[in-house]
This record gives sequence, C-alpha cells and structure tokens, in this order.
Amino acid sequence: MKKNIIVMKFGGTSVGSVEKIKRVADRAIKSKNEGNNVVVTVSAMGNTTDDLIELACAVSKNPPKREMDMLLSTGEQVSTALLAIAIAEKGKKAVSLTGYQAGIFTDDIFSDAKILTIKKDRIFAEFEKDNIVIVAGFQGITNNNDITTLGRGGSDTTAVAIAATLNAKYCEIFTDVDGVFTTDPNIVENAKKINVLSYDEMLELASSGTKVLHLRAVEFAKTHGVIIHVRSSFNNNEGTWVMDTEKLNKKMEKAVVAGVSYDTNQVKISVFGIPDRPGIAAKLFSELANAHINIDLIVQNVGEKGIAAISFTIKKEDLEAGKKVVKDLKEKLEITNIEIDTEIAKLSIVGAGMKSHPGVAATMFSCLGNNGINIEMISTSPIIISCVIRQERIKEAVKLLHDEFELGK
Amino acid sequence: MKKNIIVMKFGGTSVGSVEKIKRVADRAIKSKNEGNNVVVTVSAMGNTTDDLIELACAVSKNPPKREMDMLLSTGEQVSTALLAIAIAEKGKKAVSLTGYQAGIFTDDIFSDAKILTIKKDRIFAEFEKDNIVIVAGFQGITNNNDITTLGRGGSDTTAVAIAATLNAKYCEIFTDVDGVFTTDPNIVENAKKINVLSYDEMLELASSGTKVLHLRAVEFAKTHGVIIHVRSSFNNNEGTWVMDTEKLNKKMEKAVVAGVSYDTNQVKISVFGIPDRPGIAAKLFSELANAHINIDLIVQNVGEKGIAAISFTIKKEDLEAGKKVVKDLKEKLEITNIEIDTEIAKLSIVGAGMKSHPGVAATMFSCLGNNGINIEMISTSPIIISCVIRQERIKEAVKLLHDEFELGK
Repeated sequence: MKKNIIVMKFGGTSVGSVEKIKRVADRAIKSKNEGNNVVVTVSAMGNTTDDLIELACAVSKNPPKREMDMLLSTGEQVSTALLAIAIAEKGKKAVSLTGYQAGIFTDDIFSDAKILTIKKDRIFAEFEKDNIVIVAGFQGITNNNDITTLGRGGSDTTAVAIAATLNAKYCEIFTDVDGVFTTDPNIVENAKKINVLSYDEMLELASSGTKVLHLRAVEFAKTHGVIIHVRSSFNNNEGTWVMDTEKLNKKMEKAVVAGVSYDTNQVKISVFGIPDRPGIAAKLFSELANAHINIDLIVQNVGEKGIAAISFTIKKEDLEAGKKVVKDLKEKLEITNIEIDTEIAKLSIVGAGMKSHPGVAATMFSCLGNNGINIEMISTSPIIISCVIRQERIKEAVKLLHDEFELGK
Repeated sequence: MKKNIIVMKFGGTSVGSVEKIKRVADRAIKSKNEGNNVVVTVSAMGNTTDDLIELACAVSKNPPKREMDMLLSTGEQVSTALLAIAIAEKGKKAVSLTGYQAGIFTDDIFSDAKILTIKKDRIFAEFEKDNIVIVAGFQGITNNNDITTLGRGGSDTTAVAIAATLNAKYCEIFTDVDGVFTTDPNIVENAKKINVLSYDEMLELASSGTKVLHLRAVEFAKTHGVIIHVRSSFNNNEGTWVMDTEKLNKKMEKAVVAGVSYDTNQVKISVFGIPDRPGIAAKLFSELANAHINIDLIVQNVGEKGIAAISFTIKKEDLEAGKKVVKDLKEKLEITNIEIDTEIAKLSIVGAGMKSHPGVAATMFSCLGNNGINIEMISTSPIIISCVIRQERIKEAVKLLHDEFELGK
C-alpha cells in the first residue's frame, strides 16, 4: 500500500533548545511509526537568525543581500542536522537536507526569493531508504547555484511547497499556540481557537497581522489545495484546519466575522502636492515596487486645483528604503511635502460570511466611533475590512470589536 | 596580460572576531590591488566548530558523521559570508562560495573526506566579474550531493587544492606565528624561523607534531608542485617557503637537521599473546584501517614460543575506537592482554640532510641517554628519526636536541 506523506513544520521556538529538538524528534518518529512517510521542515534555533544579522551588521551597515542569504541559511542547516542527530539517537533513520539538496529552486531575489520548483527525486530516494527527511526551511538555490532565503516566515512556505510537490495528505504547522484564534489571546482573554478556516479567511488574517501562519504559505496552499493543520508543538490537541471550506458543510459560513487581527508594525507615509494627472501615482508605486517594498493600504485624496495627497502604509523595516524612493522622486513628481507617521496601527475584521452580510462595515465603524476611536484610513475587500487608527488605542479597539461580533462566545 | 592567481588561507584565529575579519579583508584587497586574481579560503571563526560539536554531543553521544558534516560545514559558511560582506563594505567586489558552489568534490568518507576534483568554472566566472572569491575551507560535496568535511586542518588542504587546480603562483597560509620554527618557540626560547623547507621536510615536521601546516595539505602541495608560503597574519614579514628545494641552490641541504618536533597527542596500545604467524598482524592493522584509525609508530617483538607483542601509537581521539577494534579481535587473534599507555610523547628530528650524514640517529640517542631519558619506541625514515619517550620529559628532551643540533644559532 502506498504510504501517506505528512509534512511537519516546526518554527524557531519549537527547536530553540536541545530538549525541544528531542521533543520534535519524538513527534516526527510518532508520525513515522503511524505508517507515514514524513518530511520535517525546521527554522533556525531560537534567536540564531537575529544573532547572525547582528554579526553582519557589525561588519557592514549595508551588507549585500546575496551574502546575507549565504550567512542566514546556516541557521536552518544547523537545526536540521541537530534534528537528524536527535532522531538517529532515538534509533530511527533520518537525513537532513539543505534547500539545495532538497531540490528547492527559487528566483534570485536574495532575502525575499520565491520558490519556482521543487525537484522531488532526492526526497523520494530518501523515503525509499526509510529515512525521515528533514529539510531546511526558509532557503533555496537559484539556477546559478546561489543560496537564497525566502524572507522571514519562509519556513512555512517551504513546508507547504513541499507538501504540494509531494502531494502530501496534509501539512502540519507546529507553533507555540493551539491554533488560529479569533484574536490575540494576549489582549483578549476570551479569544477562542478557530476550528476551520477557508484559505481566503486565513489569507486575510495573515495579511492583517495574525502571525501564526505566513501569508505566502497560505497563498501557496490555496493555489495547490494543500490542507494545513496549525497546531501546538506542546500538546496533542486538534488545532486549526485551513482548507477549502466549500467542500465542508455550510455551517462554517455562518461565522460572519471569523477573527479580529491587528498590526502595529506599519508606518504611514503621506506625500502632498502631487498633480492629479494620470500615471503620476503609478510612477510612485512602481518605483516602490522596484525597491521590493510592499504597500499595504493606500488612500488618495484630491484637493483643490487638482492637487492630490497620497497616503500609504508599509512595513516598519521598509521605512528607510521607502523614504529614499519618495525623496528621490520629490522633484519629478512635484511633491511639496512628505510626512512620516510611525504611531499608527491597522485593525481588521475577517470573515468569509461578510460578503453575504451587508452592514458589517457599518457595525465596525460605529463601534469604534461610539468609543471615540478615530478612523484614519479604510480599506475593504469582500472578506476583510481594515482601518488605520492611533497605535495607542489598538488594544482597546481589538477588545471592543471582539465583543461587538461576539467572538468569545 | 594574464593575471597571477594567489590563494590565501586564513585559519580560525585569523577570523576570530569582526575586527580580525576586517583585517583579513584588507589583506585580500591589498593582493587584489596588486593586480592578482585572489581566492581566499577561511576556516570557521574562533571556537565555532567546538561549539557546534558540543551542541551535537548534547543531542547524542554518537552522532552520525554525515549529519556532523552537515552541521560543522556551517561554521566556514558563516565566516566566508562575513568576509565577503567586509570586503564589500570596503568597496571591493567579493563573492562567497560554499565547498559545493566552488565545485570541490570529495569522496564520501564523512568527517575525513578527501578531495577528488575541483571544477573550476565557477571560480573563473567570478574572476571574470572582478570578484575576490572567498571559498569555505574544510568542506566539499560528494557526487550524491552530500556535504562532507575534510577533517581538522582541512582548510589548508582546500587552499592548496584550489591553488593546484587554478595553477596559482603560490598559496599563502596565514597563521598566528611567523612561519615554521626549528622547534616550538613556547618551549625553546631561541627557536628560529626556517626560511625554506623542502616538501619532504615539511611533511615530516607536520606528521611529527608541528601544527603550523596540515599534513595532507603538504602532500597535496608536493604532488602538484604548489609553492606554499607560511606567514603571519599579524605582520608583513617573510615567512617560511615550502617548495621543491632541489631547484634552489644547494646551500639548503647543509642543514642536516632542520627542526625538532614533538607530539603529545598520542597514546600507545600494546597487545600481548598474538601468535607469530603470517597474516595475524595484518589482520589487526587492516581492521584498524577499516575503522579509519591512522597508526603512527609500530613495534613488534617476538618473544618465547613464537608469541608476539605488538605496540602501536594512535591519536588520542581515536583511542575509544581503537580499543573497540582490538577488543573485538581479542578472541580471534588469541590476544592475552591489552595495555593502554596515555602518558607518552613522540619526539622527532627532521632534515633532508640526514640521509647523507650518518650518525645523526646515534647523536640523538646518546643525547637522550646521557640525560637519563629512556627511549621506548623508535622509527626512522631517510629524513626523520622519531622516538617515543615519557610525556613528562618531553619539554626537556626538545630543548636538549635543539641545543645538540645547534638549531638556535
């Protein structure tokens, strides 16, 4: 009989110490003993990546990205080797593979590479040898044999991409919480674990600040129909399943709002004085895209005499690069003024049921307004509504919306 | 005009800190600015390798060697990336390469692999881009894409092998001393730097305990005629040249004894009761070879009734493995007793002139004997004489021989 293939992914905190690595080994062996072919992808141990970044920054303030990837990819290589050693110590066969050895080919956008293809020969060859296969997450190789990294959270993507390639039964993402919650349990005491989410809901939650699963991994899973199980590495509880919920009974759809998420890692850049002519805003945003800066929310207001003000939010770590792009364009785009606001937060509600339930946005805005919380930017899509508010009010706002939509019940 | 190629190798202490890495960057840039194509091979920073070994030992007392190589190879990858970053910070182009990327193919004896071939395409392609090429020492890859390490000191071998492949002008081995000395300057105050050594002299010095250059690297250099320059990474002084001295004037050969070396990292295993029949000793030593244990000295005495006693020395780190081989053979070889002696030291004098100067051995033995130092084992070859003595007398013995052969003058 053909064995099921299970992909298991453990993050940095799950492999943060020798003891924890031994526990990961136990889990992998358990799944193997249940008759599965098992692939484990791991992140770097605990703070390894940050330590390496610190080391590089001591050498140069602007290290070449190719060399950073060469440097950072060692973190995962260390944890894969240690996990293979831990499994061998427990009497089971295991082999560790770098991204290159596992056949993970990416484009050459260093530090933020995208997986192009995975050659599965090596992994299958190791299954034939009855090995548990441990693959370094977060990394790959270009066609020119240069090591790349997928950017932060890329280990999730590695796991899902391998699951897709191998046609795995499902992909288990082990983390330090029990699953995906209706909101951050650190802020709202009665936040509840969600049992099932559609890919789109998970996408919106991930993109709006829920950190438990990496956005790109969910996109990959959606495209390839990979079933994800987000669960705790500390217990055996059922976690949150992310899958095509259309195939389930329709009960799920009744959850109008599935969760409240927030993101305090954004900054707002406002540029004033841009002429409201076709192509001007496009020029700004294409230059930002060329610098690999992802824009989140955009608001454009046209004022007197056809002069526009454009505000957009980006990640805090892109602020310096973003400022540079805008300043370089100042003359060309006739920008009169640039404002940076770092004290913002983004607040979102997500739910596949929203598209068939009008009035959700109104409920959200009234709830915030009634409590004196000013909304500075708004963005909506069929299953998510996001607002930018002052950062100092964010915890309060999350609690208010969680109560308003009765998510704790 | 075709550029000269220079290979520079820096050991772990030379790249032990961010400051030191910056200094290595300066040296590489200096050589590049002199018009050379430059390859730099580096070891892991300071104690990285030992730290990784400790981590692995916390997971398992007997980690699989393949996984250890996967683990340890990250140490060099980190230092190559940091050196490339340091060179870029100083405005020069550099690229770091793992053993695999540099095309260094080895056999599959994990933890002690031998270089089979180096594909030079990538390094030459990087020369074309005007890059200083930084290659991770100590590592390679098998035909099956598994990462190997060359064993301790393997970075020297990497450097020499690259120099041979690229037909480099010479290979500079940077270290924390000024070159190769007539003996250990920590023991003998008037030890002197040797200006030129033949490959054979350097081979014997390296094999008898002089740690400045790795044995296998010298063998490689001899086979391929690579000129080595051993010099300090802390100053610009001329160091010791290791080369084919036949091509130099004959003055060199007058040095009957070039140096005194010693090795306290050996243990003696004695087995008693082996029948003196053909093939019995061969069986013992072939089993040791199968376990990848290198034998140094061997002494066999045949006693009464054709019963032999065999003593041999091995490296301390091979003791457990060596004991196991001997114990497993105990019944088969009719061994009656096994003795382990860890308190020995090996003392050697090396010199190409010895072969044409009879009486050198006698001088050595008399000198030791007159000072009450007992010789327990002896081994000689045309250019080296080695004795095993008690470890507690080794420093005294080194001083005596250094004086006896007037090496401090």
